[in-house]
Parts: sequence; structure tokens; C-alpha cells
Amino acid sequence: MSPRITRWECDAKLSDMVEHAGILYLAGQIPEDTAADTRGQTAEVLATIDRLLAKAGSDKSKLLSVVIFITDMLDKPQVDAAWLAWADPQAVPARAVLEARLLNAETRVEIVCVGAR
Amino acid sequence: MSPRITRWECDAKLSDMVEHAGILYLAGQIPEDTAADTRGQTAEVLATIDRLLAKAGSDKSKLLSVVIFITDMLDKPQVDAAWLAWADPQAVPARAVLEARLLNAETRVEIVCVGAR
Amino acid sequence: MSPRITRWECDAKLSDMVEHAGILYLAGQIPEDTAADTRGQTAEVLATIDRLLAKAGSDKSKLLSVVIFITDMLDKPQVDAAWLAWADPQAVPARAVLEARLLNAETRVEIVCVGAR
Repeated sequence: MSPRITRWECDAKLSDMVEHAGILYLAGQIPEDTAADTRGQTAEVLATIDRLLAKAGSDKSKLLSVVIFITDMLDKPQVDAAWLAWADPQAVPARAVLEARLLNAETRVEIVCVGAR
Repeated sequence: MSPRITRWECDAKLSDMVEHAGILYLAGQIPEDTAADTRGQTAEVLATIDRLLAKAGSDKSKLLSVVIFITDMLDKPQVDAAWLAWADPQAVPARAVLEARLLNAETRVEIVCVGAR
Repeated sequence: MSPRITRWECDAKLSDMVEHAGILYLAGQIPEDTAADTRGQTAEVLATIDRLLAKAGSDKSKLLSVVIFITDMLDKPQVDAAWLAWADPQAVPARAVLEARLLNAETRVEIVCVGAR
């Protein structure tokens, strides 16, 4: 018998977080406040990830893999500034930063991540 | 001793699906019929995913994480239409949609996913 | 109690490899020698992956999923040449190749992968 799948914050298209066998898979998280600059947008997305992980009793120190998509690689220093202000320095995950166009031009960052419960 | 790895539909470069410890990792799936529009291409890819999952005794209700790459974000409504017609509304996975250029200009969508066996 | 997380080659921002419950998550790996052509850069990145996996007592035959980002899809034949010269033909992982702009114009390839310990 396979382990149960638990889902959080589902709509018709997706679940914002899915858990299976102790692993948490998060949907791509984007900012709501797209008037903020890339650092501000990144900080908002990281806070959303904190909030989702907390629902499963986890936190950022248990993140395993994080892929950050940004609309312009020139914004990477802004992403890194928000990241460094947020990350647990004793427990940083594997990470990649790639450029991709996102939902719309105002959305500057989207983060896809996997963590342990 | 670590769990065995099972592979399906391998060629020299890749396996279309790999299973380890109850998790199924699928290769990036693209459509064969690139004359179809993005909705048709998406439906074809989703049917391919159904077919692969079935080989391992799994199905779309056990998908955990899905990343959809499309060549033009303006096609997202077409992708969503195919997705909504296909997804199990009681069991939607984590999902992200990103823009990326794919194998060739005619290929409008590629899907990378992870599921439970 | 959840399994322990082990991290290798950490700096303030990321760990180059993270292990949890027998799964290895690697950070996006890019070449150091960006004067090399795409085939050379790919070979260097694949050698880096070999080196990282070896630190956890694993190897390329236990890779599960590999996503290759290249700055120009026209370089895919070069990536495939390096890949075929490297891959274990009896144990190929799930794989996807996508186009994305990377850290800078000289960096032609970045590889994100997941393997079994």
C-alpha cells in the first residue's frame, strides 16, 4: 500500500502544496504585489513558502531543492539579497536560478521548491 | 541496501520514466503532432503521461508535481483548457507554468512531472 | 521523527548537494571554463556531477531525473554528444532539455538533477 497524498490550498487546477512519504512539493509561487521591485517580490514569495511549509509543520531549514525563475537575470543580485536575508545559514538547500518569462511582465520571480516535512 | 531503480522506454539518452522508492520521475514529454494547436498538443502530452503512469500501475490522481513549459505564455489559456478537461478535480498536483523555448518552434508545450507509484 | 538532512559544499546561499531519505538533490551546476564550447562545458558539468555524487557514495547510474538548460536550443547536438559519451547506457535517467538564459552569456549549459544515494 502506497503512502497517502495530502494536498493543501487546492483549486480546480492545482494544489499549492502536496505531501507524499514525508516530502513536500510546492506549486510555483509568485508574488501578489507585482508593483514591488524584484527584491520585494522575492521576499513576498519566500514568506509565502514559509507560510505553506508551516501548514505541514515544516520550515525553511528543511528545504531540499529550490529553483528560482526570474524574468531578467540582471535581477539576480536583488533575488540574492532577499534570499540571504531569509535563508537559514546553517541549512541552505540545493538551488538554481534560471531566466524565464513568467505569468506576465510585472511578475519578476517564481519559485518552485521541494522540502522535507 | 538502496531500493532498486526501474526504468521504462529507455533509449541511448534517456528513460521516459524511472521509478525509485515508490516515486516516478518522467522525462520531459512533448507532442508528436506538432501541427495541432497548443490545446491539442497539451492534450496529447497529458495522454502520454496517462499512458506512462499506467505502465507503473499509477495514474494522474497520484501526480505530485508538474512543471509545464510553453513557448509562449499567451498560450496559457489553451494549456489550462486542456489541463482542466483532464485533471482529476479531487486530486490536483502542485503545478508551475513557465515560458521556455523547446525542441523546435512547432513544439508548443513540454511537461516534466513526478508522481507516486 | 523525520530522516536527517545532509548537505555538501555549502556556502551562504546554497548547498551543492543535499541528501534526505536516500535521495540526492543537486544545485544547478554550471561550468567554470566558459571559454569552452557547449560540448566542452557540458562535459565539465557532467564531471562535476560525477564528483558530487561520489561524495555521497553514489554515481551516474543512480541518477533519476536530469533537467538540462541551454542558452540556445541549436546547441542541443553538442549537449547530446557530451551526454552520450558520458551516460551509462544501461542506466539512463529521465531527462528534459529546455532553453533558458543562464548566469551570463558565456555560460551555455546548466544541469539540475536528482539521484538515489
